[in-house]
Amino acid sequence: MNIHPNYRILAASTSTIHGSGYLEYILEEAVEFLNASEILFIPYARPSGLSYEEYTLAPQKAFAQKGVEVRGIHEFENPKAAIQNAQAIFVGGGNTFLLVKTLYELDLMETLKTVVANGTPYMGSSAGSNLTGMTIGTTNDMPIVYPPSFDALGFLPFNINPHYLDPDPNSTHKGETREMRIQEFHHFNDQAVLGLREGSWLEVQNGEINLKGSLTARLFEKGKSPIEIAPGQVIF
Amino acid sequence: MNIHPNYRILAASTSTIHGSGYLEYILEEAVEFLNASEILFIPYARPSGLSYEEYTLAPQKAFAQKGVEVRGIHEFENPKAAIQNAQAIFVGGGNTFLLVKTLYELDLMETLKTVVANGTPYMGSSAGSNLTGMTIGTTNDMPIVYPPSFDALGFLPFNINPHYLDPDPNSTHKGETREMRIQEFHHFNDQAVLGLREGSWLEVQNGEINLKGSLTARLFEKGKSPIEIAPGQVIF
Repeated sequence: MNIHPNYRILAASTSTIHGSGYLEYILEEAVEFLNASEILFIPYARPSGLSYEEYTLAPQKAFAQKGVEVRGIHEFENPKAAIQNAQAIFVGGGNTFLLVKTLYELDLMETLKTVVANGTPYMGSSAGSNLTGMTIGTTNDMPIVYPPSFDALGFLPFNINPHYLDPDPNSTHKGETREMRIQEFHHFNDQAVLGLREGSWLEVQNGEINLKGSLTARLFEKGKSPIEIAPGQVIF
Repeated sequence: MNIHPNYRILAASTSTIHGSGYLEYILEEAVEFLNASEILFIPYARPSGLSYEEYTLAPQKAFAQKGVEVRGIHEFENPKAAIQNAQAIFVGGGNTFLLVKTLYELDLMETLKTVVANGTPYMGSSAGSNLTGMTIGTTNDMPIVYPPSFDALGFLPFNINPHYLDPDPNSTHKGETREMRIQEFHHFNDQAVLGLREGSWLEVQNGEINLKGSLTARLFEKGKSPIEIAPGQVIF
């Protein structure tokens, strides 16, 4: 598979791991990777229905520790121009359906594709990482709004399943496990799905996709048994 | 709220509870409620990607114990006529997005609304119960296919969240709890959401909605604190 050589993408399973602050586990890596004095934050996924203003405070506070400024896209009169002029972009987590619906409605999907293909570094967490895959068809989120399409940005030649959870052998609950859901997905879709556990992220640069963090990730390819990818391993 | 006096609906959280067979916990009640010698089964939600034929074997085997025949809608040349002529309808669980997409594509949504308003008994489990609410916006399923709408059959003046799970106080996982997801839903939608725990079901008849089973259900109304509804209690 060919990954665009200009892509510089950091796609994290989660913004926060248990027992640590927002972005704390990944902050140093993110600052180095994004290599920007100012980051454009896209808060459209609105976790817990937070306002754009409230939500933007979280990355502002985190990145300020490293002397990096964060501005929310809602602060700009022209969001398209804000993306075109950004040094680096961070798309935060929350509800993937809401994120995608808002981006389509504001006609920002193509703009994001263009700037990232031109080399603007992109960071996503959770819903923002779902967006880097081919579709949002493997999100864990509730479909609280109806987007005009499930097509995502397609930077990666597969789908992401963030917050990947292994089946609990002791569960008495009859809802589907994550693995069962991904297998259902493969009855109707061909692309691979990468289950990214909390604390893992993908780093895309120089035409390569690397798994980072200390955990393995679970790769589901249609018609094959799932396999574990080791940290540091090149994926595709 | 007015519930149509002709509605005879049984909406179950799940088809199967821990440690018992398919429909076992609800079979007696279902047979009595549906009051039919033959039931039309709608297998479109295809759990685990099962074929219509394979999936239909499950309710066939269950209802056969009570001398009730089950025929899958795929066995009929004209699915619309099959619904119009059915003594009773059972819509099985699986993937809600797939169920709704298939029903819209086959133009069966309006037909279902018409026959149920004319008094045909309707039973749903899981995805089939999501369908009885206003929208599928509170399904737990993965959006493996893109339906033309999230609008459901709207028999109930609220949404169902099946397989409702209480937050696990010991979890270290950062994915949203069910309650957080429903609260996000209420930032963008007005209708109430009823969290139906596994083993609970709603019985709708004589213009009333009753909670059945031994567990309470959790009712989320926009802008209010959630409350627990006791079994036997009339809802709306």
